[in-house]
Amino acid sequence: MPATSNSVPTTSPADTIFEVSEPFVLASGESLERCQIAYTTHGTLNADKSNAILICHALTGDQYVLGTHPVTGKDGWWETIAGPGKPLDTDRYFLICANVLGGCMGSTGPGSPNPSTGDIYGLSFPLVTIADMVDVQAKLLDHLGIERLLAVVGGSMGGMQVLQWASRYPQRVVSAIPIATAAKHSSQNIAFHEVGRQAVMADPDWHGGRYAGLNTRPTKGLAVARMGAHITYMSDDALHNKFGRSLQNRSDISFGFDADFQIESYLRHQGMTFVDRFDANSYLYVTRAMDYFDIAADHDDILARAFEGTSTRFCVISFPSDWLFPTSESRAIVHALNATTAKVSFVEIESDRGHDAFLLEEPELFATVRAFLTSIAEREGLA
Amino acid sequence: MPATSNSVPTTSPADTIFEVSEPFVLASGESLERCQIAYTTHGTLNADKSNAILICHALTGDQYVLGTHPVTGKDGWWETIAGPGKPLDTDRYFLICANVLGGCMGSTGPGSPNPSTGDIYGLSFPLVTIADMVDVQAKLLDHLGIERLLAVVGGSMGGMQVLQWASRYPQRVVSAIPIATAAKHSSQNIAFHEVGRQAVMADPDWHGGRYAGLNTRPTKGLAVARMGAHITYMSDDALHNKFGRSLQNRSDISFGFDADFQIESYLRHQGMTFVDRFDANSYLYVTRAMDYFDIAADHDDILARAFEGTSTRFCVISFPSDWLFPTSESRAIVHALNATTAKVSFVEIESDRGHDAFLLEEPELFATVRAFLTSIAEREGLA
Repeated sequence: MPATSNSVPTTSPADTIFEVSEPFVLASGESLERCQIAYTTHGTLNADKSNAILICHALTGDQYVLGTHPVTGKDGWWETIAGPGKPLDTDRYFLICANVLGGCMGSTGPGSPNPSTGDIYGLSFPLVTIADMVDVQAKLLDHLGIERLLAVVGGSMGGMQVLQWASRYPQRVVSAIPIATAAKHSSQNIAFHEVGRQAVMADPDWHGGRYAGLNTRPTKGLAVARMGAHITYMSDDALHNKFGRSLQNRSDISFGFDADFQIESYLRHQGMTFVDRFDANSYLYVTRAMDYFDIAADHDDILARAFEGTSTRFCVISFPSDWLFPTSESRAIVHALNATTAKVSFVEIESDRGHDAFLLEEPELFATVRAFLTSIAEREGLA
Repeated sequence: MPATSNSVPTTSPADTIFEVSEPFVLASGESLERCQIAYTTHGTLNADKSNAILICHALTGDQYVLGTHPVTGKDGWWETIAGPGKPLDTDRYFLICANVLGGCMGSTGPGSPNPSTGDIYGLSFPLVTIADMVDVQAKLLDHLGIERLLAVVGGSMGGMQVLQWASRYPQRVVSAIPIATAAKHSSQNIAFHEVGRQAVMADPDWHGGRYAGLNTRPTKGLAVARMGAHITYMSDDALHNKFGRSLQNRSDISFGFDADFQIESYLRHQGMTFVDRFDANSYLYVTRAMDYFDIAADHDDILARAFEGTSTRFCVISFPSDWLFPTSESRAIVHALNATTAKVSFVEIESDRGHDAFLLEEPELFATVRAFLTSIAEREGLA
């Protein structure tokens, strides 16, 4: 379903929809009378339902891990690592990925109709947290009859969900692979999100979040937010290597405000294409969920207590050029896990590509995930 | 003169104005029929005019190095390092600081009237470069009868001007102190500037730059630009130490989009106060001047050639926590100067406060500048 200028698709024919059967109570204390989760699966669930891997997506990701994305027509966002014979091997494992609560690809979010009024929620949608996202995923697994996950894996906000899963449902998580993530959102990261939100809210087409009823969308503000965020996903080195000061389709600077430099043209393109596939209010809600994430806060600010007595096996992965979720954040997770004598391996993977490295062709990442999952699968007696 | 919501002051009673007597030809080939530069001086010029130090300001700085700023009522931006008995000692030296060409504190810029039409220039103002800023400062020095500068000093964009001065007018520069700067603007830095410009341009009150005639100003867009930029001026550690995840005037998160976190409140304040003292079009022009800066580009892309045969003495200073102008950029300058056998000392000053460190209370910075200037002054036979 191609996007049009005044609507972002919120469902798609390829989605499988799970409707939560009772009102869903959120961390804020508010509840959603009705809510649904859109998800995809790949591979085959085995007879004893022991080969399921939950993939958790990042801020602007969705359930389209593999295959053609119904809006963009592009490949799924994690084709690099998932598929037949790949580390997240659809020949061996049953992969599940759900659009997060608050998202805009079929799961209930601020772009959904409020069942009490029939109107689009907008800002009347209650704030959701990473824990809420995970809780509704747990209900999806109940629905699928999957008691234990062989693994939960994800990068960035996906990694936050991985940590939340391991903390909240330790009996259900055989292994956990948090990648390029943190146990709490840093001040700098909250700051970047706040700028993005202010860019959206400064757009007069946002209308206090009520744009859906006004046949308009704050595309300019959302594009600016995306441009700013995109810089944080790449390393200084990656930008230097990819663009440097190269000019875009010209031999000299224009002495003006055109996109003289390739990096400018690239960022403008990123901003413009993003608004065709993402809803501005969802961007506000999901960034806020990340800001609020601080898993130790529910455990007397002692991170180790969030994982006390866990039998989950962890593989924590970071990239040294990732300045948004630097290795120090992963080390803090590892230290906490060590303090609870959890079984944890930690791999810092050489890459100069910054935070985005987890989405890219990174052979050492693939080898690490493959080896870890293979050992977990063997331990669990999978063929 | 206090700012009102619909005007940014472009002159102030404390300004001294220098009018360039003939049309001023810019690097772009265009020329300004008339142009003026607003500047301040502190200290006393000695009889042989050998104790003058030119201070070059950063992107959003101005000529108010010392004393009360006429718009904000705050202290001058470099009170930390300049004044009686301070490293930039007004008891010994004659300090000069001029608002850059393209700026909005009295120097000719996009907010000035076009003498041909009487209308405010807006985007019809020609693009200016760092070299243009320096060339017009050179004319100011001619006007003041100052042939040689004891030193040129500045941080960030001020440091770019320092390098440009040393390259363009080597005979006029006894010593140069470029701080927290680079010989070219990096891809990442161009990227951040482009996001800021797009935020301004996305504001419908910008009106293609013609807001002056419409009694409006793109304050929301400019505030977003400033918020984003401000993050880049501080280090992750500085943000963590100053704000962490501390909440603003509340005991718990609000589950909403208020400024729950102190960092959010701080950034919003930075954005809101900035728009009272800075003109949006000037922000576009001056950021663009920085983007275009690449001093080697005029020298076959060989940085050393920009300083070939120089007799200027350099003191290059960087801060390890500055990720906007990292130490590697300063090292590149030092390597080029070494290659030309220029006299250069290089000091990386321990500070966890990021790019902004050059504006802050940093005793090692002060000691370095004081010692360097004292030795230069002695060498020049100053009492």
